[in-house]
Amino acid sequence: MSGTLTVIGLGPGDLEQLTPQASEALRNADSLYGYAPYLERVPQHAGQTRHASDNRQEIQRAQQALAAAAGGARVAVVSGGDPGVFGMAAAVCEAIESGPAAWRELEVIVIPGVSAVLAVAARIGAPLGHDFCVLSLSDNLKPWSVIERRLEAAATAGFVIALYNPVSRTRPWQLQSAFEQLRRLLPARTPVVFGRAVGRPDERVGVATLATADGSHADMSTCVIIGTEQTRSIERAGKSTLIYTPRGAARPST
Amino acid sequence: MSGTLTVIGLGPGDLEQLTPQASEALRNADSLYGYAPYLERVPQHAGQTRHASDNRQEIQRAQQALAAAAGGARVAVVSGGDPGVFGMAAAVCEAIESGPAAWRELEVIVIPGVSAVLAVAARIGAPLGHDFCVLSLSDNLKPWSVIERRLEAAATAGFVIALYNPVSRTRPWQLQSAFEQLRRLLPARTPVVFGRAVGRPDERVGVATLATADGSHADMSTCVIIGTEQTRSIERAGKSTLIYTPRGAARPST
Repeated sequence: MSGTLTVIGLGPGDLEQLTPQASEALRNADSLYGYAPYLERVPQHAGQTRHASDNRQEIQRAQQALAAAAGGARVAVVSGGDPGVFGMAAAVCEAIESGPAAWRELEVIVIPGVSAVLAVAARIGAPLGHDFCVLSLSDNLKPWSVIERRLEAAATAGFVIALYNPVSRTRPWQLQSAFEQLRRLLPARTPVVFGRAVGRPDERVGVATLATADGSHADMSTCVIIGTEQTRSIERAGKSTLIYTPRGAARPST
Repeated sequence: MSGTLTVIGLGPGDLEQLTPQASEALRNADSLYGYAPYLERVPQHAGQTRHASDNRQEIQRAQQALAAAAGGARVAVVSGGDPGVFGMAAAVCEAIESGPAAWRELEVIVIPGVSAVLAVAARIGAPLGHDFCVLSLSDNLKPWSVIERRLEAAATAGFVIALYNPVSRTRPWQLQSAFEQLRRLLPARTPVVFGRAVGRPDERVGVATLATADGSHADMSTCVIIGTEQTRSIERAGKSTLIYTPRGAARPST
């Protein structure tokens, strides 16, 4: 008998942003695997086992989950936001490719979720507006020179830039360095959005310009969105500022 | 009295991928505005009025919805996928900026949804895996030369590329031209995913390589994902092929 492995996107945090498809998959699982803070968000169901693991243990977690599924269980691997965006879906695929042949026979299902970048963008207006890129600022799995090259390519070609993993305890300087690089490529007034833990009780959303953006305003739970020279701010008396990027590229930037 | 305007992401199609937050906002609206095929997906609620409009009528639709909200109504504007990704959120912001002052006093809420690129990626494995960009191939609102520049920047810097609006009746050649350009920049074996109407009854997902990718396999409802030189295929006997991009950039590409 062969089980199934379902990789489930939990969305940005609030259960109101968890899709019915994801809820059902969570209910139907025999066992759940995930980073401890994500597992804590999942409602308890009788008879399920839970296997919490640390951050950065993605491959080991995927291997344990695949082994359990190969033993016949209905296994769920939970991932914050969307599992395909710096989440567990790629780690599961890596583990399958390098694992025993039996793992290739498993049914593998990925259930998408609302990724953090979409939740942050929604809170502030429409900063992604037109073409954009999504980039992890973590140099744990790729050299910093690759990140610098991608930042330059994205900024000079006019993509809005969304940064995941901007800062961690072991990576304190990377975001500030990215801002310094982008200041040489984009106007000083370019809007920068800091969206932390959007959809959760400790949510905090802030807006700066590239000139004033301070890397110390971000932490591991922050997604940072940097506009293009066309990104605009709409000031509103008594209401929050709306940040948006017009859909067309030909619109004047002033 | 001033109403509210809520821009709601419907997700990729299946109601099982509509968030509870979006469902509630749809229930609570006095009137709904949207492109007709999107409105048709929304469950009927007594007492609501519906205002369907054509594709490409985004600004007029946004203006009508804002005028209704300024009249005191609870107005919902629906958008397929996520409203911030080539959806109605930017059009609403554009209309507010150029509209009467009263529109700036409205409460504007954007409710994110599962965007098509996330749904397509989930169906096939984890092609977005690491850094990626999202690009509209429509040259209705920007010159084709800008699109070519962005394709080159993204491909040479190692971003996975997701294309929205790859083809329409009035834009028949653009996707084929993009493939030709990318063949000069990326290996012939680079995986290409065609995901059409994912989550809907007429869903169709196909995989090709950059060498064999045929623009005529896409239509207006297709999202196309083009990998990097690191994107991999896992063949599985009796199961669908998994396409994924490893999380790290340093991994060998063979």
